[in-house]
Amino acid sequence: MATKEKEFVIGIDLGGTKIYSAVVDRQGKIHGAARKKTKAEQGFESTVNRIVQCAHEAVAEAGVSMDAILAVGVGSPGPLDLKAGKIIETPNLKWKDAPIRDLLQQAFNRPVNVDNDGNVGILGEYTYGAGHGAKHMVGLFIGTGIGGGVMVEGKLLHGYNENAAELGHMILDPHGPKCGCGNRGCLEAFASRLAIEREIRSAVAKGVKTKVLDNLKDKNARIRSRRLAEAFADNDPAVAPAIRLSAEYVGYGVASLLNIFNPEVIVLGGGVVEAIGDPYVEIARETAAKNVFKVAMRNVRIVSAELKDDSAVLGAAVLGWEITEK
Amino acid sequence: MATKEKEFVIGIDLGGTKIYSAVVDRQGKIHGAARKKTKAEQGFESTVNRIVQCAHEAVAEAGVSMDAILAVGVGSPGPLDLKAGKIIETPNLKWKDAPIRDLLQQAFNRPVNVDNDGNVGILGEYTYGAGHGAKHMVGLFIGTGIGGGVMVEGKLLHGYNENAAELGHMILDPHGPKCGCGNRGCLEAFASRLAIEREIRSAVAKGVKTKVLDNLKDKNARIRSRRLAEAFADNDPAVAPAIRLSAEYVGYGVASLLNIFNPEVIVLGGGVVEAIGDPYVEIARETAAKNVFKVAMRNVRIVSAELKDDSAVLGAAVLGWEITEK
Repeated sequence: MATKEKEFVIGIDLGGTKIYSAVVDRQGKIHGAARKKTKAEQGFESTVNRIVQCAHEAVAEAGVSMDAILAVGVGSPGPLDLKAGKIIETPNLKWKDAPIRDLLQQAFNRPVNVDNDGNVGILGEYTYGAGHGAKHMVGLFIGTGIGGGVMVEGKLLHGYNENAAELGHMILDPHGPKCGCGNRGCLEAFASRLAIEREIRSAVAKGVKTKVLDNLKDKNARIRSRRLAEAFADNDPAVAPAIRLSAEYVGYGVASLLNIFNPEVIVLGGGVVEAIGDPYVEIARETAAKNVFKVAMRNVRIVSAELKDDSAVLGAAVLGWEITEK
Repeated sequence: MATKEKEFVIGIDLGGTKIYSAVVDRQGKIHGAARKKTKAEQGFESTVNRIVQCAHEAVAEAGVSMDAILAVGVGSPGPLDLKAGKIIETPNLKWKDAPIRDLLQQAFNRPVNVDNDGNVGILGEYTYGAGHGAKHMVGLFIGTGIGGGVMVEGKLLHGYNENAAELGHMILDPHGPKCGCGNRGCLEAFASRLAIEREIRSAVAKGVKTKVLDNLKDKNARIRSRRLAEAFADNDPAVAPAIRLSAEYVGYGVASLLNIFNPEVIVLGGGVVEAIGDPYVEIARETAAKNVFKVAMRNVRIVSAELKDDSAVLGAAVLGWEITEK
């Protein structure tokens, strides 16, 4: 028992804007954590160095030595080539063919297990969060982009090339707004934080007043989710409709996903959902209920991510534990 | 061996307009078959009687006795309650809470195994058709309505309430045309035979000329798929755009399904695809290729149902064989 208690893995949630790493035990308890900016624009290898620094900071914060770390799990933007451990391409971060697993394995000198950010998100919720024994779950994580993950009979849905569950790229209107992936009318193009910002800026261009663009470094700078949440609560005339549109389209996506997967639980997470909270989930839930086969809605729970910001980092830790068993 | 060769099951494909039953051996060979109209409007029990007659005709046609029939498999419109063996509701046929398994079990005095029409369609293609060992497959069957079926790691995707894979009710435009299910802009509302007919009649109402409505019993009568195919080949100005629209929206649906499931094979079947053939599949394939993450398109085959009209009846036979092993 004594030795077991001293064993940990590092979970890493690599996002479009931030890196979040945590030292996690077998029960999913976080013993130390750290955050850093991703700075993807400085190139992939620079981000890898920041990931390694961030992980070491989490280890220091946990007050353990690297000897206690058995493995590292990573949730990364995709699509990924899981066999080669590479990022194939990332529409939002502009990396291509990036050997994330090998570089981290060298840096940590430990086994590294990588999966898609949406997959680790739902894996975290399945294992430690909103799952509560549900074998059929779908997760949508609404942040800079939209990640998705699906559990079918208690297993992650990976598909033939291991790139299933790109739920942000379900088409919700073939003539809709342009998406980062190059196509039109994907869920992500209606509902991500980038889509919300686009709607706000387009309202402003039409003369709608908003406070949310005040005090930004420059007029194209990122609007933080917390700022969006405050403006939504104030019923800001540019922000409130943009966020309602996002939540509605998430609801249409949820309706489709209910008809497609007939899951027991749909988890909504990610920065946007975290920031806005219940009102966002409520709009999505109502829209879904109006647009789904009644049968697929039966006994379904549509809930916020229970682990909040930790879904992906804890799911990444699960990946870490899995690779220690191989 | 001698006894084994004398063992068969009956597969039944219960469709919106016709019942198709076949006597099938373990290798998926059809030894006799029969067809009857569904006549759903005469009520559920009347249709059950027609199913039983149709099955007996297939047995007579096969030249075997009922003693050689071990079990019966049925593909039925859904959503179904698989545990109770009931049809919960059928948007197109107007039945509710219909105990199909028990009534057929009484009539045949044999075990009866029922599943959704789309599920048996993909099960047939997986076992005897376009599957060829592919463990990840998606099927879209475009007829009166649109059925779907999904194989994940070689197993049918059933979901929590066993009503997964209602792929005809993916939303492709929340502000699109009304669907039989009550919602708006489902794939079925853009692409089913009923949707094609609606587009043709709406073009005619706007003054577009067509030959396809000539000689119909009344102006609201069903337009047969074969008739649609001839008019499409003649580039009929009402029919051709309606069918192209159907194939395009199937392509958008396929793009979403590629991003969602990342399958190895997508099978397109059903009366509309059968009748129009390659040009239809080609439009769907091109539209999908333009609207999908490149990675999810990698090595994917988008093909017509190899078993043509027999996908569902042979998948139903697989269900029959499965229940003999329980």
